[in-house]
Formats: sequence, structure tokens, C-alpha cells
Amino acid sequence: ETGVKISGYGRFGLVYDGDNSFLHTRLRFNIDATTETDAGVTFGGRIRLQNTGGGYDSYTDGNTSISPALLYVEYEGLRVEVGNVNTAFDSAALIYDSEIGLTDSSFGDSQTSFYSFSTGSYHSGRAGVYASYSMSGFTAQASYIDDEHYHTGVASDAETSIALSYSTDQFTVSAAAVQNGAGIADNDAWFIGGAYNISDVATVGLNYIDEGTDALGQTIVLYGSYKMDAVTLKGYVGQSDAYDSTVIGIGADYDLGGAKLTGSIQDNGNDTVADVGVRFNF
Amino acid sequence: ETGVKISGYGRFGLVYDGDNSFLHTRLRFNIDATTETDAGVTFGGRIRLQNTGGGYDSYTDGNTSISPALLYVEYEGLRVEVGNVNTAFDSAALIYDSEIGLTDSSFGDSQTSFYSFSTGSYHSGRAGVYASYSMSGFTAQASYIDDEHYHTGVASDAETSIALSYSTDQFTVSAAAVQNGAGIADNDAWFIGGAYNISDVATVGLNYIDEGTDALGQTIVLYGSYKMDAVTLKGYVGQSDAYDSTVIGIGADYDLGGAKLTGSIQDNGNDTVADVGVRFNF
Amino acid sequence: ETGVKISGYGRFGLVYDGDNSFLHTRLRFNIDATTETDAGVTFGGRIRLQNTGGGYDSYTDGNTSISPALLYVEYEGLRVEVGNVNTAFDSAALIYDSEIGLTDSSFGDSQTSFYSFSTGSYHSGRAGVYASYSMSGFTAQASYIDDEHYHTGVASDAETSIALSYSTDQFTVSAAAVQNGAGIADNDAWFIGGAYNISDVATVGLNYIDEGTDALGQTIVLYGSYKMDAVTLKGYVGQSDAYDSTVIGIGADYDLGGAKLTGSIQDNGNDTVADVGVRFNF
Repeated sequence: ETGVKISGYGRFGLVYDGDNSFLHTRLRFNIDATTETDAGVTFGGRIRLQNTGGGYDSYTDGNTSISPALLYVEYEGLRVEVGNVNTAFDSAALIYDSEIGLTDSSFGDSQTSFYSFSTGSYHSGRAGVYASYSMSGFTAQASYIDDEHYHTGVASDAETSIALSYSTDQFTVSAAAVQNGAGIADNDAWFIGGAYNISDVATVGLNYIDEGTDALGQTIVLYGSYKMDAVTLKGYVGQSDAYDSTVIGIGADYDLGGAKLTGSIQDNGNDTVADVGVRFNF
Repeated sequence: ETGVKISGYGRFGLVYDGDNSFLHTRLRFNIDATTETDAGVTFGGRIRLQNTGGGYDSYTDGNTSISPALLYVEYEGLRVEVGNVNTAFDSAALIYDSEIGLTDSSFGDSQTSFYSFSTGSYHSGRAGVYASYSMSGFTAQASYIDDEHYHTGVASDAETSIALSYSTDQFTVSAAAVQNGAGIADNDAWFIGGAYNISDVATVGLNYIDEGTDALGQTIVLYGSYKMDAVTLKGYVGQSDAYDSTVIGIGADYDLGGAKLTGSIQDNGNDTVADVGVRFNF
Repeated sequence: ETGVKISGYGRFGLVYDGDNSFLHTRLRFNIDATTETDAGVTFGGRIRLQNTGGGYDSYTDGNTSISPALLYVEYEGLRVEVGNVNTAFDSAALIYDSEIGLTDSSFGDSQTSFYSFSTGSYHSGRAGVYASYSMSGFTAQASYIDDEHYHTGVASDAETSIALSYSTDQFTVSAAAVQNGAGIADNDAWFIGGAYNISDVATVGLNYIDEGTDALGQTIVLYGSYKMDAVTLKGYVGQSDAYDSTVIGIGADYDLGGAKLTGSIQDNGNDTVADVGVRFNF
């Protein structure tokens, strides 16, 4: 059993960054190859093509990026990745769950730097390994990224991160830590979060992040969602030392059956930003 | 209903540019993602991979280009694109219909510059929008490309273009105009054309283009095709101020059932050029 | 009958280059388009995406390469390629058959330079043609690569190569020669090899390569494989003037049914290298 599958998403709309409005476009293709052996072990690999135009904090550069390769092996609950790997901190359950709107953003997100699967090219010395294990609602993840694996001279420290989570139908708890985030010495951060399904249509969660540097301090954010037929309302309120302010955001998704209209308004004490548009998965 | 489809074409053969003969190769992959909602609205996106070797006016650079992304939404006759969009002038009905041969070329084509869907990278400030509407044989298109949408400092004017066409089984008429073509101030051009199906096997058409600059002047071209079993003969004759000469070309396609042999000889008063080869669509 | 198919392979593991150990990763996607005409002629094209991290002689550069395009036509035993073509010498039967292990390597390989299908970008003047013909076990190949086809000034000589082979169920014999390998004047090499199937599970072969320069001299290598259920043992022993030494290697593949575990230890008189990992085709 073997094959190649292309999946991903597209989104486009308008982004207001507090001063001006811009078009926003993104198209992501994940090209995934998998081979399953007779014994049920799955080997696979991924390369991503992605193009982004506009956004709160990044302008288009007019180029479509093509990622380095991720290779992995999976067997039952265990997954090991090498190459352009996912990282435990970036993949921690709940860590991005306060995000809303077209561009999947939140002022309650971590503001520090850490590695993740890289959409574009990266430093020539870089290699990574990642492992996760899931069983009965419990998931453990660990990752290690070294910019000096293939040669020295980059003056970058290896990043290590771990993440643990436990999930039932009713609730999820998650914790993660990263050391030398993005290869920056002493950029150590940790995260803890919990989410609770109040009912079939309502969820609430709380995230706490101790950011990687003194300047960024702590971020705490309370978020929730409420579903009414095709509409899902979302919102968060938090306190961010990075912005030295209360942060707040509200958003709404309208389910089109295969795609969604989505928008948000968010404020970090200095800027009020907003986005609206459509997103479709494929 | 959702998925990713790769389509495109390949072509290869020989091109004689008036002085020398070269190999010509091109391979184009359009990677298209689409999602149709329950209500029948289609969202989609495209990234193109293309490699070209040789040609009348461009040598290979040995690189395969990867396009920025086009995103769109379609509902019944309406289509709206954002990002790396098609343009109305470039998409005008009939405007390229005098083209013949392996490399789809004609000295009766417009000689001025204007934007189109970009196969390779483009300027980091660029964004575009395009809309078309079709109903009962009538099609209207409009596009707007701004090289300074994401940031200023490019010293380029926004290009605007529109196109209208009406088509029946018997005939097609088309008109289009572009202002500040390719972002060049005062590079304004317009086009009008008509085509008539004389019979099931014979067509004839006339294109008139007022080019974007005084130096290029006007181009007028009369073209036609005649089908005999698997062979289609094509030809054009015109007057081009850009070449300050009568221009003329004859070509033939031989249908291989899924591919075609194709060739042409063309003259612009200064050079006689020719091409021959094979083209297949997939 | 037309379509696009993506195939390739992934491999990952560890490589010891004699001094240090590195992660090794490679993911290859061949994107192949084909169209078959009603008369049974197949036209096709290929672009390759590939990312490699580590290896005996190349570090990752953190970029995924995208190849120039190969175009071809096939009819019965005849195949003609243009563009980024395969070469006869690189495609000669048996020439790489002493290779073992994760990275498909052997000190019994030719040590001189010659062209092959290029995974990454190449010189802007380059074009190639290749033809092969197969009938009743006999295969003839010829190729011609010219770095100055599209423009002069590269100071590179055109490479010509030819290859002949004959194969039965019992044995294969192969010979090939290259002139101006990799465009280097007087870099002329030739190869002759033979392989014999001793039984259903055992093969043995002998390769002789007269390298392209006096400094590299000759390489002669005796190799074989022996299959025991899911395990295939492989090995070679040879004499290489390039290394001024006896060269030797042993390897083993363990068939996982759709993937394989594979490893090797090799010595060239100066260095002992090793690799181990997994490879899967898709």
C-alpha cells in the first residue's frame, strides 16, 4: 500500500493591520508520500509548497517557497521524524487554540521564537529529530533541532523541546517546554494549558506561557467558542507582558460546507487589527 | 467535493530564429486545488511549475520556475481571482488567435507589455484582483494589478484592464483595453477582434491592436484555419507598425489523437522564423 | 490515455564518513506526465523535486532542488529524450551494480565526472538529446549534452556517450564510453561489465572502468549478492587507482515488504565508512 497525496488549504481575504488594509492570500500544498509495509509500519515523507501574500506581520515576497523534506516512520502510536521535523513545542496540544479569524492569529499566542516544520529553506547545517507517542488519550512529544549537525560555525545552540498532553471527551490538559528556542541560547519557554467541553456546542480553555526572555514575560489567555448551527463564535481575553496590556479578540466562522467564511477583530492595547475572508481545505 | 489535479502540457522540437536553430522544450504543470461547497460555490487555487528551453526570444535559464499562487472563487458565471491573477487584456477572447506552430507565436500578436498570470516570481509588492462574468455567450472581464500594494517605492503604476466578448456558434467579437500596461505609465493599448466560422472546417478572423506606445503604433492581422481530416492548416497576414512591415505566417497541425505535430514559418519583413515539433496536453 | 503520476523514494538513517556520523535524509518526487496517442506513441515529461540531508560527500544545503524538464517520446523499443536528458554512460546497464547500503554507494563506482539527469538547476546554455533502442534483450543508448547550445562563452566541450548491453535470464553484458565527460575536454572514459545469475538467489558481476583522467587510472570491481528469505547479502572487492588501494564493501538488505532496512560497511584503504537506515519506494 503506497502512494502520493497532495492536500492543504487555501485562504484569501482582507487584513487590517491597524494602519492599512491589505489583500491576504495563502495557498499550501503538502505533498505526502507513504508506504505501508506488510507488518503495518508506515514510512512517509513530506515536501511543502506554499505561497503567502500579505498578513499582519509579513508581506508577500512574490516567491513560492518549497520546504526541505520531512521523513518519518509510524507504527501504532509511535512516530519518529527526521530532517525538517515538527517540534514538540510547536505541536503542543492547545497552544494555538486561542487563534481566530482568517489568518489563524491571536495576541494570546507565544511571542517568543522557536522552531517548527520549516516552510522555506533553512540553514545548511540544520538537522532535526522528533518523536511522539500516543496511547489512550495520552500523547508525549520530544524534538531536537541542531543547526550545527552537518557543520559547525553557525554560532547557534541546539533547541530541545518536550510536550505532554492528556485528552478525554470532556477535557484536554497540555504542557510543553522549549530550551534554546530557535537556537538562541537561554531562550527557554514553557507552556501549560487546559480546555473543557462545556457542552456539544461550547468550549472554554486557558493557556499560560512563560516566554523565552525577560522582556517578553508571561502571557495568559482565556478563550472559548460557541456553536450555533452554521456559525461558530470565538473569543479570547488575556494579559500579555509582551504587549504590556490586556489583549482581546472576537471572531466568527460561518460554515459553508467544505469551506468557511471567517473573520476576527483583535486588540493588543496598541493596535486594533481585523481580518475577514474565506478558507477552504483540500 | 474537493481535490487536487495536475494538468498542463509538454512540447518539444526545433526553432529557427532567422539565424540559428535551437532545441525547444517546455513542460508545464498546473497544480490546481478545488473545493466545492454544498451550495455549489467553488473555491480554488493554482501554483504552476514550468521549465522552458529555447524559443524565439528567450533562452533557457536552466531553472524551473514556480509561480506565486492564484486563489479564486467561482459561482455560476462569476469568477473572482486574487493574488497572481489572470488579467483581462491577456485573457481577452481572440487576442492570441492568429498564433500558429510549436511555440504558439505570431507577428500579429500585440508587441507591447502587459501583465498576465506570472509563471515565475514577481515583485514583492505586487497583488492583483480579477473578475469575470459569463452569461449566454457574453463575457466581461476586469483586472487590477498593483506593484505597490504591499509596500511603496517601486515607482510603478497600477495596471487596469477590461475585456468584453460575445460569442455564438457562428461568430465571436471581442474588445479589450489596458491602462498602464505592465505598470508602465501611459502604456495604454486597446484591442478589437472578430472571428467567423465559415463552415465546420473553416474559420477566419481579424484582429486590430492599438499598441501601448507611439513607437509600436498599430497591428492589424487577418487569420484563418482550414481543417482537412487530421490536418489543420493555419495562416495569417497583417501589417505591423512595430516591425514597419507586412507580417505573414503559415502553419499546420497534424492531429495524433492526444497529441499533435505542429510547425510554422513566419516572416516580419526582417526575419523569417520557423518551428516544428510535437505538443501533448495532459 | 493521459495523466500525471508522482513516484519516487524516501530514505533516512545514519552515515559514518570515517570521522563523524550524520543523519541522512532524502526524499525524491518524480512528477511524470504522459500522453499516449491513438497509434500507441507515448509522449511524456518529467520534473523532479528532491531534498537531501547529509551523505558521504555532500552536506544538505537546506534547499529542495527542482530539476529542469525532461521531455521524451517513446514508441515500442525506441525512446528519444530532449532537454534535461538521461545520458548513455550514466544509464549503462550494470555500471552501478556494485553499489550497496542506504546511500547506494560503492568505491567500485567510476570516480570521474560525467553528466546525468540533473536534479538541480544547470548552466543556462545547456541542452541535451538522448536516444535508446531496445529489442530482444539488446539495448543501445546514445546521448549528447552541449553547454553551449543556447549561447557560447561557457568554455565547455559537448559530452557524447554511448552504451550497449545484452541481457538474458542468465547473464548481462554491458559496455559504455563517454567523451568529454561533464564537458571537460579529453575526459574520456569507458566501461565494460558482465553479470551472471548463478542461481535464483545468487548473482555475481565484474565491472571494469578506464577513468577519464590519468590521475584516476582504472577501477576494477567484483561484486555479488546472495538472497536468504527476506535478507539479501551484498558485497564487492576491487582495485581502484583513484584510491591507489584495494576497495571492499559488504552490505545487507532486509525486506520489509514495501520498504527495506539496509546498511553497509565499505573501505577504500584510507577511510572506513558505513551507513544504515530504511528506504521506501512509492
